[in-house]
Amino acid sequence: MTAKTDDLFHEECPKVSRVLSRLGDKWSVLIVVLLRDRAYRFNEIKRTVSGISQQMLARTLRNLERDGLVSRKTYPTSPPQVEYSLTDLGHSLSEPVLALGEWAKTHLGEIDAAQTRFDRRAEK
Amino acid sequence: MTAKTDDLFHEECPKVSRVLSRLGDKWSVLIVVLLRDRAYRFNEIKRTVSGISQQMLARTLRNLERDGLVSRKTYPTSPPQVEYSLTDLGHSLSEPVLALGEWAKTHLGEIDAAQTRFDRRAEK
Repeated sequence: MTAKTDDLFHEECPKVSRVLSRLGDKWSVLIVVLLRDRAYRFNEIKRTVSGISQQMLARTLRNLERDGLVSRKTYPTSPPQVEYSLTDLGHSLSEPVLALGEWAKTHLGEIDAAQTRFDRRAEK
Repeated sequence: MTAKTDDLFHEECPKVSRVLSRLGDKWSVLIVVLLRDRAYRFNEIKRTVSGISQQMLARTLRNLERDGLVSRKTYPTSPPQVEYSLTDLGHSLSEPVLALGEWAKTHLGEIDAAQTRFDRRAEK
């Protein structure tokens, strides 16, 4: 094992694991990738990220804000408009997250094929 | 939104989301990173990935095998030895996954600090 990899398991393992499990969460990934380009309003995000519930979106945005990845800005309109955007930290995270998303998109077919083969073998 | 990002949300969104939520799972991430360097036996993985239960490790390895990311090789010793290693697909995944892990390790302190600030504001 390289020294670099080793650190992930020992030195700060529990903390890194915790961060990873939060960051790797499906909705967080999609929202971080979405906000790369510009700020979005709550309902815009809800429309774009298909399948997310109002409550789950609120919870995910709150967690991202708590982690310092997303910032929330309220405009004093009536009703008040709330906009979400990536912080600098969020932007730096979006790079490896997008790379993972692109990998998933590229290799989706291979994963599907592997699953079909596996399930066929398991049936026998 | 760039065309590249856009694809993640529409074209194949449900499938990519599904793959991401599996790949982003904490244990899968740690196991894929571990197996980058060499093949491991079940108990070796269990010892190295601290905190994982026997059952969760078995389930995670089975899912990774089903996805075509990990291959399992049985040696006809007594008792039979089972070794797990990354497939070519698994190796290609380990690149963006390791990048995400390294990001988490590098920015852990910033995330912790942001959480402390957020919680203090919320208490007021």
